[in-house]
This record gives sequence, C-alpha cells and structure tokens, in this order.
Amino acid sequence: MAAVALVQGASRGLGLEFCRNILINKAPGALIATCRNPDNAAELMSLVAQHPGKMTVLKLDVNREDDIQRAAEHVKKVFGKVDLIINSSAMLHPSGKGETSLKDVSAQGIISTLTTNTVGPLVMAKYFAPLLQKGSGAFGQQPPEKAKQHSGIIVNITAKVGSIGDNAFPWFGMDIGGTLVKLVYFEPKDITAEEEQEEVENLKSIRRYLTSNTAYGKTGVRDVHLELKNLTMCGRTGNLHFIRFPTQAMHRFIQMGSDKNFSSLHTTLCATGGGAYKFENDFRTMADLELLKLDELDCLIHGLLYVDSVSFNGHPQCYYLENPSDTQNSVKTPCSLADPFPMLLVNIGSGVSILAVYSKDDYKRVTGTSLGGGTFLGLCCLLTGCETFEEALDMASRGDSSNVDKLVKDIYGGDYERFSLQGSAVASSFGHMMSKEKRDSISKEDLARAMLVTITNNIGSIARMCAVNEKIERVVFVGNFLRINTVSTKLLAYAMDFWSKGQLKALFLEHEGYFGAVGALLELLKSSEEP
Amino acid sequence: MAAVALVQGASRGLGLEFCRNILINKAPGALIATCRNPDNAAELMSLVAQHPGKMTVLKLDVNREDDIQRAAEHVKKVFGKVDLIINSSAMLHPSGKGETSLKDVSAQGIISTLTTNTVGPLVMAKYFAPLLQKGSGAFGQQPPEKAKQHSGIIVNITAKVGSIGDNAFPWFGMDIGGTLVKLVYFEPKDITAEEEQEEVENLKSIRRYLTSNTAYGKTGVRDVHLELKNLTMCGRTGNLHFIRFPTQAMHRFIQMGSDKNFSSLHTTLCATGGGAYKFENDFRTMADLELLKLDELDCLIHGLLYVDSVSFNGHPQCYYLENPSDTQNSVKTPCSLADPFPMLLVNIGSGVSILAVYSKDDYKRVTGTSLGGGTFLGLCCLLTGCETFEEALDMASRGDSSNVDKLVKDIYGGDYERFSLQGSAVASSFGHMMSKEKRDSISKEDLARAMLVTITNNIGSIARMCAVNEKIERVVFVGNFLRINTVSTKLLAYAMDFWSKGQLKALFLEHEGYFGAVGALLELLKSSEEP
Repeated sequence: MAAVALVQGASRGLGLEFCRNILINKAPGALIATCRNPDNAAELMSLVAQHPGKMTVLKLDVNREDDIQRAAEHVKKVFGKVDLIINSSAMLHPSGKGETSLKDVSAQGIISTLTTNTVGPLVMAKYFAPLLQKGSGAFGQQPPEKAKQHSGIIVNITAKVGSIGDNAFPWFGMDIGGTLVKLVYFEPKDITAEEEQEEVENLKSIRRYLTSNTAYGKTGVRDVHLELKNLTMCGRTGNLHFIRFPTQAMHRFIQMGSDKNFSSLHTTLCATGGGAYKFENDFRTMADLELLKLDELDCLIHGLLYVDSVSFNGHPQCYYLENPSDTQNSVKTPCSLADPFPMLLVNIGSGVSILAVYSKDDYKRVTGTSLGGGTFLGLCCLLTGCETFEEALDMASRGDSSNVDKLVKDIYGGDYERFSLQGSAVASSFGHMMSKEKRDSISKEDLARAMLVTITNNIGSIARMCAVNEKIERVVFVGNFLRINTVSTKLLAYAMDFWSKGQLKALFLEHEGYFGAVGALLELLKSSEEP
Repeated sequence: MAAVALVQGASRGLGLEFCRNILINKAPGALIATCRNPDNAAELMSLVAQHPGKMTVLKLDVNREDDIQRAAEHVKKVFGKVDLIINSSAMLHPSGKGETSLKDVSAQGIISTLTTNTVGPLVMAKYFAPLLQKGSGAFGQQPPEKAKQHSGIIVNITAKVGSIGDNAFPWFGMDIGGTLVKLVYFEPKDITAEEEQEEVENLKSIRRYLTSNTAYGKTGVRDVHLELKNLTMCGRTGNLHFIRFPTQAMHRFIQMGSDKNFSSLHTTLCATGGGAYKFENDFRTMADLELLKLDELDCLIHGLLYVDSVSFNGHPQCYYLENPSDTQNSVKTPCSLADPFPMLLVNIGSGVSILAVYSKDDYKRVTGTSLGGGTFLGLCCLLTGCETFEEALDMASRGDSSNVDKLVKDIYGGDYERFSLQGSAVASSFGHMMSKEKRDSISKEDLARAMLVTITNNIGSIARMCAVNEKIERVVFVGNFLRINTVSTKLLAYAMDFWSKGQLKALFLEHEGYFGAVGALLELLKSSEEP
C-alpha cells in the first residue's frame, strides 16, 4: 500500500513546512496533518486545497489524550497503518520566550512545556505504535538486511529545534531584493564562559569576521552608523548589525557559506524578498542550506514596527521635515511613530510597493510601480556612464533639472492658474531633451538630477493618490532608494505637503531599507508552537 | 479727473476682454462694467476682485430702458462724467446661429436682434451723451487743434464683429502644446460666385496653400487621412483639415502670418494650449494679431464631443481593442461614444492630464503626470540618438524590453503568487541597466521599447487608479502620444482589462490629438451674445 505520513502540529512553522516538503518530494499515498484548531489554520487549509484527495486534516491537541486516541482510531480505520509520524508541536515556553533567569521560571510554565514537549510525543507513541508496526517502511533509508529494516519511523522534534526561536547562534535575517541583499546579524554580547567553551570555532569565526570588518569583499558594506546597541532579543543581549551587498554577488555569498561550512551550524536561515525564492535552490545545492522563506511585505511591516519600538540607541527612529515647503531650509525633526495605524507604507526598492497598514497583521498592497530605485540607477548609468548609486546621487546633487525638464512656464510662459499649476512645476519630464540643441549643451549632473526628480515625483504623486483614496494621512517612506538621498526626502516631504494643502505628512525612518531583514530575523526568533 | 470708462455687456467674450485690456493698458481712474446678470458673471467678478477699488459692476439689460436710465443716473452721481463707452452686447441671433436660409427667419428673432443691436446702443447714447460731453477726452488720439478735440468716445460693436462666430473666413482653431501645434482649418466648399468675387486675394491664397499641400516647410504636416469631409458648421459646408507642426517652429509660423498680412483679414485667432499664453505677445508684436485665448481642457472636451458627434466621414470616431488580453491578436473594433458620461479622459501630450468628465461642462482635473510623450521622446533621443517621434516608435517596434527591465521573475525566479504578480510583470523598469555587462550588450531598439513600455504602463497604472477612485468604467485615451503608436494602445487596453479584471474599458479616438484645436474652432463659431 502507498506510503502514509502523519504530521502532528501542522498548522504553521516547521510542521507546515514538513507537510509541504513531504507532498512535493515524497509523493505519499496520503498525508494526515493534525493541529489544535483547524479553523484557524488558513495556510494549512490552502495546502489541502492545492492537493485534493491527498491530505486529511484532524483536530488534535497533543495535550489531550482523548484527542490522540480518537485520531489513532480514525487512521487505523481509514488507512490501517502509518509509515512516518513527525511530532512537531514542541514549544519553547508558553510565553514565547525561553526563561533566561530563575526569577522568570513558573510551575505552570514548566508543566505546560513538559506536557507539550515530553508527555505529548509519548502518548502519541503509545497510540500510534501499533499502526507504525504495520507500516511498509516507505520512509527513510533501509539497510540491505531484511531483519534490520524498519516498518515505520517516529520523529520527535525537540523544543531546541522545534522552537526555531531558540535555535543556536548565529542569528541572521536576510532580505534578498532585486538590487541589494540586506542582512541583519545579531551579535550576542552576553556569552557566558560556558557558552564560549561550547561554541564551535566556525561560529566564532563568523562573529569575528562580521563584527571586526565594515566592508566585505569588494561590495559588501556594514552600515556602522545604524548599529543597534545593547538590544535584548529573545532573552539575549547584544548588538544588531546591518549589512548590505549587491544581489549580483549572491552566488559569491552562497559560495562563502559553503566554504565556511555554514550548514554545520544547524541554524535556520530566514530569508525574505524575491531572492529567497530565486536562490532557494542555489542555497540547497551549493551550500547544503535550507532557507525558511518568508513573505517580504509581512517581514517589512513586522520589522518596521519592531525597529521603531526599540528606539535607535535612545533616539527616535522616525523623523519628518519641518518646513517642507521650503526645500532649501527644511529641517529634519525626530518624532514618534507611537499609534502608527493606519499608515500608508511606501517601500522604494528597485521597484515600489505601496501598502495600507491597519494593524500589525492587517494590511493590503494598494498598488506598486516599476519606476523605482532600479529605474533611477539604470537610467542614470545609461545617461551618464556612472556605475554606482553613490556616484549617481553625487552627480544629481550638483545638477539642475530645469535644464532637462519642460516646466509649466516653458509651455505657458507662466503659471497655469486655472488648475493651480505653478510655472515652476514640471509639465513634461525630460521634455527639453527632444531638442538637439538642448541635448548638446546638457551636463551629466543635470541629467542625473532630472532622473532623480522624475522618479521621486512620480512616486510621490502615486503615493499621494493612494493616501487620499485610502483616507490615510500618515505616509511612511522606506527603502534603500532613500539612503543618503536628501534630495528625494525633501521632494517627497514637499510634494505630500503641497499637493495635499498640509493634510498629508511624509515620515521617514532611519533604518530605511533594513526592515524586511529585521522582520526575517524576528521570524527566526518566534517559537514554533501553535498559536 | 482721472479717466472713466464704461463697458456695456462685460460678462464675457469681447466685453470682458475690453475690461481686461483697459485695466492693464489704460490704467483708468474707474471702470464701470455692466451686464445683464452679475450673479452669473463669475469671470467678471474675479476680475473685480483682482482690481480692488477700480471696478464697479452695474446690472444693465440693454433691452430695458429703465435699466439704462438707472445706470446713467448712478454714474452721474458717483463719477459725474464718462470718457469712453463701449457697447459690446451685440448678438448674432437669439438661436446663437445666423439665419442662412429664409425659412429660418422669424419675426421674434429679428425683433430680438434689432432690440439688442440697434435699439440698445441708441438708448445708451440717449442717457449717457450728457456724461460723455463732460468727459475729459482721456481715451483716443486727439488732434492738435483744441476745437477738434473730443470729450468722450462711444464705441458700438456691430453684430458682425461682436458675434465673433460670424467672423469672416478663414476659420482656424489652434492648440499650441508643449511639443506640437495642432491647427484645424475649415475650408468652405459652398462659396457663392458673389462671395468669391468679394474674397480678398489674401484669403484665397491661404486656402490654396493649405488645401493644395500636405506638408508645410520642413516640419508641418497635414494629416490627410483625418480630413472630415462635407461638414456643416455654422450653416456653411466644407472640409475640416488637420495640420500639425512642432512648437519649436512657432516663431516661423508667426512670421509667416506677418508676411502674409494675416491681420488684414480681421479674423479672430482662437488659440488654446499653454502656447496661447506663451506666444500671445509674439503674435501681437510680430504679426499684429490678437489671440482669443481659451482653456485647453474646456476645448479638449468640447472638441472631442463635437468630433465624435459628427462621425468620421460616416465611420465611428471611437474604437476599442477586442481581446485586449492577447496583445498579439487584439483587434481594433469601432464603437459608439453615445452616452459618454461619466468618462475618464486621459490626455497624453508632452505631459499627461487626467479628467473626470460628467457632462459637457462639468468636469474636474483629477491629476496629471509629467511622465508623458515628451518624456518618452526626450529620453529616447538621449538613449538612442534618434531625432523624431517616428524614429523612436520605429525602433521601439523592433525592440524587446525584457532585456532592459527587471521582471518579477528576475527577482523571484517566477511569479510573486501572493499578490498575483506574474513573473512576466515588470518589477523595476530599466532595472537591468545598472549592470555594466547588460548595458554593454543592449540594443537601441530594446532601449526604445523599454522606454515606451515604461511610460505607457505608468500612465495606464495612474489612469486605472483614477478610474477606480472616481468609480468610472470608461477610460478614453487621447493625445498625440498615441499617434501611430499601436504598442501603447495595446498596452493600455491590456492594462485596463487585466488589472481591473475586465471592469474597465479603454477607448481610443481616431483624431487622437486634435480635439483641443477643434474646441478652439468651436469657440470661434459661437456667437458672443451674453448667455
């Protein structure tokens, strides 16, 4: 009979991933997925819908013996056997954090943890052992001698692994975008002597490499000024480092992971951004590493809210520009993002995504535009021969876009009063460049500036429309396009203020493009017990 | 005492223009503006607000003797004299059109016309003559001999001039945009022998020049395929010609108007577009021509509705693309624009304006973007060295934008399923061009295509947002960017259909960019009587 597998604790985290993996790589005859509350297991249910006839979902709380008994009876009746059981509902602690101090320990906490992690799998074994004995040994490698072959396998995920949040160091979060890879690394500063002794050489060497350098290879950079110091995450205290390198260098990075035998560390690599999908197979084949792939917009929002909540080494994370209408003299002013909802979140990377965020987990992607940072840099390289974002911005800072753009006054001779279009407003971006005479006399700096103004104003205009339609007054701009880019920050602040007659406010965040990576790290630190 | 002027029939048209002109060029001590219904004279009232303390508005229906008497008494009491009276409320006919056939003549019509045009000015003269005699001769040229000097001037505008709609040929409408000048010319085909005899040589020569050529100078073109034949306008039958030339050649055009002594024809030159404002003074000083300046969006809508209503030589003006989702095989399909409201009107010229139109005279400008046809052409010239729109489009038709743009699949390896972004969707326009290797191997055709796709999709995306917000399902795209531009037409049709899941429909019009010029011509043909 075809192979039958059962995953206990399948609603999310590792359990859900096991289900996916078994379906795709093992093509079982049947997969039984159990969880505490199937009604709340939307992702699991969508997996069921994708594999019609393959999956059975059973309600099973591993803390309830009658649940386990009933499930075993059902499986016996329908399938008659099981070849593989994965007990995956291990938990770190009911609070979601491990106790790191004796004063945090509670009887209730210990009993609850023991019940789920120790008693549960034992009771599972009690009721399912007869069914495993009837298994056909469809999973796992079999020795050649018939006598030594197994009929079934039971796998108990310990809390140490099941709670991926308590995974061993190193703690990384990675966001693999279209242009840049953003990497956050938590450097523990509270390592005990005992821990230090146990620490493998590999891990030490990674820590030393990352924290003692500020540049990696030709193109990797640590943004030292963004480092978050003395941060407590998951009971550990340390510094959070922010590192970026071009996505083009991804294969070199994976190769390094392989050379340093990263897979021996048994850490989970949490990754978000499109590259988590694109490079998943390369991580597996080149470096024997499995990525935990996470949605980039979930990570963005979770990371942003977290980074804002911990403050930037005692200073606010968030700021706006005072006097936005006077772009020459607008002043960066720190502010609080407390009570941030609803907010319109404009994420400017290679392309742009615009989200309406109503709470931590309630948001929608309103729209996006493909005219983003990648467009600015790509066209700047073509037009000016520059090679890097820094070069492009530097040229733009010295240019004058009015030599390139056709302004309202170039067409009207002055303002277009009836629709309040000022003479200085851009009527046609790059509109002067259809004239050979004007092209021949234009400077690279002017072209770079015009490119920056064009892309920025287009994003500002789309964001403003979204804000009006969604009736949201707080517009938060993030993403690496804004890095060292005061021209765009000022333009966006001005555009929001001017076109909304002061109704809309543009907000910016110091850690610009790193929120997705932080969100991925947070996912790593979440315990994997069912909610 | 300072000069006092009075304009009778000042709410609009020539009367309103006289007021403006007197205020600016004559700096009178006082200007009295009269009209039938000051409550409906918004433009006049805004002029009053711009000249505080200078202007007095009096209610005066030139058909009511008591109104005239009361006004004269008021002026006597307050000012004691008048230096200039302009009677400007002449009308062509109560119907707004002159009778061209005996069967259209009515007693009521004749009496009404005579009352306004003949009796009114006479009664004005009766009551105001004493005040004119007390005038100080502040207006008009005075002869040196004291005895021959006048104290006041009364100017009666005849219906022939006052009704600018009945102005002599030639009939032109002009739309001076940021890139192109669009000119429509009505060629009468029903000229009688008597008319022909009276016709000055100048007028004949203009007609011959325009209708016997299809190209003018190096850059002027007559779009022969768009000619509307046997059109009846204002009682005359003829052909409507569509001519365009680059705005850069405007000064050569004005010079030609001067060389041909155009001003001797006493026609009114109705002009819209920003250039009507920018070049107004050049028309005046170089060619002794006064422009009647008209708002470009008013003209656009009026012209569009008119052109659609007369049909395109028996064929529909409007079309859409059948099977928009299959851009290879989408088919141009004629349709009717009957019952066109509400419509979202997207006018793509050098820049882009987006209007929500609820009726002929009720519309709003929802938004605009400076990334329009001028941006496409300007950047194409820079990137490929081409010189014209035709060249740019030709290259684009042979290129492949996926070599230039970073697609979703370039970042994700496939689709971004969660937000239904297909792998083939553009994630970052020109995103590949930040790589030197990719830049070195790219063709001009690919760059031109990517530029066209980028600009078109951006406009489509903004238009779609507007349509959704304004809850309008009919999106009409016009403007010369769409000329000979099937790539963009197909992309827009596809984008509207795909992103709205079939809710939105993209419509196109054969006369693409000429509606503003037609709207200006229609204004010329309107009679100037007060509403």
